[in-house]
Amino acid sequence: MTSTTTTTRPARNGVDVPTLFATLDVVRAQPAAAQFQFRARNEWVAGTHSRTAIQGFFGAGQEDTTRTEPFVYDADHPTVLVGSGAAPTPVEFLLHAIASCLTAGLVNIASARGITLHRVESTVEGDIDLLGIFGMSDQVRNGYREIRVHFTVEDDAPAEKLQALVEQSRDRSAVYDVLTNGTRVVLDVTAG
Amino acid sequence: MTSTTTTTRPARNGVDVPTLFATLDVVRAQPAAAQFQFRARNEWVAGTHSRTAIQGFFGAGQEDTTRTEPFVYDADHPTVLVGSGAAPTPVEFLLHAIASCLTAGLVNIASARGITLHRVESTVEGDIDLLGIFGMSDQVRNGYREIRVHFTVEDDAPAEKLQALVEQSRDRSAVYDVLTNGTRVVLDVTAG
Repeated sequence: MTSTTTTTRPARNGVDVPTLFATLDVVRAQPAAAQFQFRARNEWVAGTHSRTAIQGFFGAGQEDTTRTEPFVYDADHPTVLVGSGAAPTPVEFLLHAIASCLTAGLVNIASARGITLHRVESTVEGDIDLLGIFGMSDQVRNGYREIRVHFTVEDDAPAEKLQALVEQSRDRSAVYDVLTNGTRVVLDVTAG
Repeated sequence: MTSTTTTTRPARNGVDVPTLFATLDVVRAQPAAAQFQFRARNEWVAGTHSRTAIQGFFGAGQEDTTRTEPFVYDADHPTVLVGSGAAPTPVEFLLHAIASCLTAGLVNIASARGITLHRVESTVEGDIDLLGIFGMSDQVRNGYREIRVHFTVEDDAPAEKLQALVEQSRDRSAVYDVLTNGTRVVLDVTAG
């Protein structure tokens, strides 16, 4: 096995570490490459059921051409909330987003630090009081009151490195930033 | 076709309006029924690729029993960001969440107001500067700078009702609230 130095960084945990560092070098030299735009297109199916296609994005100075087919995801309300239960609720996709973002970051950071991971799992819980979205209380917000993410990580590093790894993945997570700090969302409508 | 009155509200747009109003009446009488907890479980696959299972939730006073199988979703980074591109990025699932949440709300509200919808589509764009998550600038946040949602709606109502419909769906959207106002996210880790 190759030793980990700045000149020969092995692929680790499925992360191509040399290419990761090379990519960071490119962005350092050309900061405009860091401007990305992600997109989605949603179509109503029936009732609370809708379907989203995710395909094109702009980044690294150009439109992506690697995705030749869209990724397609449904969302719905469960039957107890008068939906058809055909898919998870929209708020459950927020839990998928935070878990997968923190995990990707954790794996990248571990790989860059030369830590070998054997297993990374997380469970996410989000508490929400629907009196808010039902418009039945001014004291209750519409969204989650709290989200909790619990990681279980099996790796070859000492425990204090593991804690630092999770903290660094949080500090570099796009989804964590949006979910905790909020972002501007602009909405408009055209009659079709 | 049945006329829309408070005593006989027809199913409209695939929404069972009588059941929707009956559900709201139940919650008004028993506010504790509005306490929900949603959950997800994520497993790392390799590199930035991970997989989330969404199944159980608590709501209306009990654990859900209607979902007999988990819904499973992958997430990954694209190849230009040194992932394998096996699935959308975590931040793209935020776009799916906002579009599907606003759409479900819009359809419910239109149905309650007796508006028949023929088509509801939305496109979502999110701008993000990756200098933030790359740790290359203190001036750049990690998450989206701005998200824009554009709806196209074909319905039988006058234009001013359409605008009001979109505004009401925004004012009752759990995902819009979380994305714009943020929420508390608690993170911990156990060595596996």
